[in-house]
Amino acid sequence: MSAEILCIGTELLLGNITNGNARWLADQLAALGIPHHRQSVVGDNRERLMAAVRETAGRCRVLITTGGLGPTPDDLTTATLAAAFETPLVEHPEIWAEIQARMSARGRVCSPSNRQQAFLPQGAQVLPNPTGTAPGMIWTPPAGAGIQPGFTVLTFPGVPSEMEAMWHATAAPWLRAAGLAEGVFASRMLRFWGVAESTLADQVADLLEQANPTVAPYAGAGEVKLRLTARATNTAEAEALLVPLEAEIRARTGAACFGADHDSLASVVLEQLRRRGETLAVAESCTGGGLGAALAAVPGASDVFLGGVIAYANAVKQALLGVPAALLESHGAVSDPVAMAMAEGARRATGATWAIAVTGIAGPGGGSAEKPVGLVHLAIAGPDGCSSEGVRFGSSRGRAWIQRLTAGEALHRLRSRLLVTHDV
Amino acid sequence: MSAEILCIGTELLLGNITNGNARWLADQLAALGIPHHRQSVVGDNRERLMAAVRETAGRCRVLITTGGLGPTPDDLTTATLAAAFETPLVEHPEIWAEIQARMSARGRVCSPSNRQQAFLPQGAQVLPNPTGTAPGMIWTPPAGAGIQPGFTVLTFPGVPSEMEAMWHATAAPWLRAAGLAEGVFASRMLRFWGVAESTLADQVADLLEQANPTVAPYAGAGEVKLRLTARATNTAEAEALLVPLEAEIRARTGAACFGADHDSLASVVLEQLRRRGETLAVAESCTGGGLGAALAAVPGASDVFLGGVIAYANAVKQALLGVPAALLESHGAVSDPVAMAMAEGARRATGATWAIAVTGIAGPGGGSAEKPVGLVHLAIAGPDGCSSEGVRFGSSRGRAWIQRLTAGEALHRLRSRLLVTHDV
Repeated sequence: MSAEILCIGTELLLGNITNGNARWLADQLAALGIPHHRQSVVGDNRERLMAAVRETAGRCRVLITTGGLGPTPDDLTTATLAAAFETPLVEHPEIWAEIQARMSARGRVCSPSNRQQAFLPQGAQVLPNPTGTAPGMIWTPPAGAGIQPGFTVLTFPGVPSEMEAMWHATAAPWLRAAGLAEGVFASRMLRFWGVAESTLADQVADLLEQANPTVAPYAGAGEVKLRLTARATNTAEAEALLVPLEAEIRARTGAACFGADHDSLASVVLEQLRRRGETLAVAESCTGGGLGAALAAVPGASDVFLGGVIAYANAVKQALLGVPAALLESHGAVSDPVAMAMAEGARRATGATWAIAVTGIAGPGGGSAEKPVGLVHLAIAGPDGCSSEGVRFGSSRGRAWIQRLTAGEALHRLRSRLLVTHDV
Repeated sequence: MSAEILCIGTELLLGNITNGNARWLADQLAALGIPHHRQSVVGDNRERLMAAVRETAGRCRVLITTGGLGPTPDDLTTATLAAAFETPLVEHPEIWAEIQARMSARGRVCSPSNRQQAFLPQGAQVLPNPTGTAPGMIWTPPAGAGIQPGFTVLTFPGVPSEMEAMWHATAAPWLRAAGLAEGVFASRMLRFWGVAESTLADQVADLLEQANPTVAPYAGAGEVKLRLTARATNTAEAEALLVPLEAEIRARTGAACFGADHDSLASVVLEQLRRRGETLAVAESCTGGGLGAALAAVPGASDVFLGGVIAYANAVKQALLGVPAALLESHGAVSDPVAMAMAEGARRATGATWAIAVTGIAGPGGGSAEKPVGLVHLAIAGPDGCSSEGVRFGSSRGRAWIQRLTAGEALHRLRSRLLVTHDV
């Protein structure tokens, strides 16, 4: 009862566009509980398209195609599908009338090439396109050798908005009515910071073996994720399967799990502070504004995040944050004393309850044996005092990576400090 | 001599992530002149992965895989490839030593599961991963029935930055040296701001029809690009084909073309100021640090970019930028007078030659009929005075989009001003 997705278009093979349609359709199939084991992309080429279609017919029950339904000579999908299963094309006068009406409503002249869009293989049902000219089809080709019983193909245009409208209006209800949607999936993404993917995988090694719900690890830029996916006959049951699993993982991993789904370190820290009625400022050297930008990316940040100082130059550290020149001279800008003076200066200048400061060497230049590229000092100043620590992110991943890790690590440290700090 | 791309990961089949790797690799294959007729995606499933690999071995000369090289039980690529061609795995002690060194440099403990990354099929060559722990391989499996002569597989991790670094450092040179790149492509990406993709396409409509060199337009977040690609028997000839084409496009499009290839608006502005011996500061409200982060993303920014103030809260606008309370009350924070006071305040506080200020409504909340979401005021202060203007980016694309457009537009305006401003 599995499905495959076949995206048709030479622009995908040339790398001109990203295949967002495949991701969107995959997400929809998962939500319907339809297993999906393979995606393919082929160009606007009759022989290769036909070969790909015949292969899928031997493997799956439902084939979803995108692209190749337009009026140009490049648009081969419908005719090639008909040929692949040796079925004649027949004209649907109602489609042709609809295309003509739609074009004239837009003040366009219907070209003869539009008429090819009115032909479907014999026995196919129209899959209406409410927002564009090219309809798709739902078609079960004649049974035959090398064809899965009941094999059915659903075709969509490549324009994402048209495809999505057709899916919701006709395809999804058809898949449900045909009994192809086996139960439903529910999923939850748990987010971690400060733990390596391999360590996390070891902590939940037994859970990674489970069949339902499943657990799968993903690594990002500093962040590590676990995706929990449950399958059941309805959404409530699927969600219920996730609850004890999430509790078990959180119990094993402790504070390393900072949130779930759409949470970010910034949104979690802002919410911690919001609950306490406290505010936050930043003082940034090596990130140049990236820490503030991460906070400002969260809608509604302004009730907690006041702003701060981008103290890229030492003169700005002195002028706007009050970092003493003597401190910069004796310890250097990348040091705990300077990081602490920056954090305290930002707290003083903005009146915020908390301030985070970062100063480091993002590279590629500026490193030394004692203070290599990737060395960052992070300080947190709050009502209970100020502390700072040096962290080495290494130089191999480059400047952007060091800047992203620095912003994440700074937020992670404030989150950890708030977890153990009582309200004052 | 064709190539296929096989992306491995259940997260792709579940629709959790978009397959950006396939697009990136497709683009690289096109640049090398290697034909590419099929892309596939399979999950972390041994049987289905093995079936997919065997099919490709019968169809193409080069198979590029992504994903499944990590240390967890889900990571099956290397072992499955070995099994698909009945070849034993052998340990590479140098890989294991490298992984241990890399983990300990990051202060992390190497878990036993990391060791599986040191095993490759007998006869495979390491494809080094300069920025991560998981190396790939270049492997020509033993000849056999149903295997194209010379069939070779190149494996990459799924992390885009690691894959890209490995491609540039080792894979692309290998493909060229192996004679798989037919002829040579040279390409150049021209970058534009302040012009719509359709307008730009109309300006170069005749050039879009050319066969060699080709011109193709791409739209991004505010930025529009034209990709120029020439094919010839050697690099010098291909590059020579691009020169008159680029000159023609620049002549037609004027100042809208701000740079090429790896240029960004930030790098171009920093270079303009560097040549003049001048410096820059920022004052950011709605971007929260994103403008500074764009500048700090450029290596070597520190000789021009001094820093500035993230003035998210009105109190910070007053305290650190000296914006008068009366101005905030009478005009509101999102206004030309406040934007100008912010820019002048940043210039005064940092001593920079130039300052850019942005204040606006990034949404989703905070808009009104008079000042809707997407309204941003941008000010530039310099030696010849200060000016400001309101811009409406619209609300339909959301907060992150408005913040990105704001940072780009601010840099674009400073660039334009510097183009017509003589040194003082």
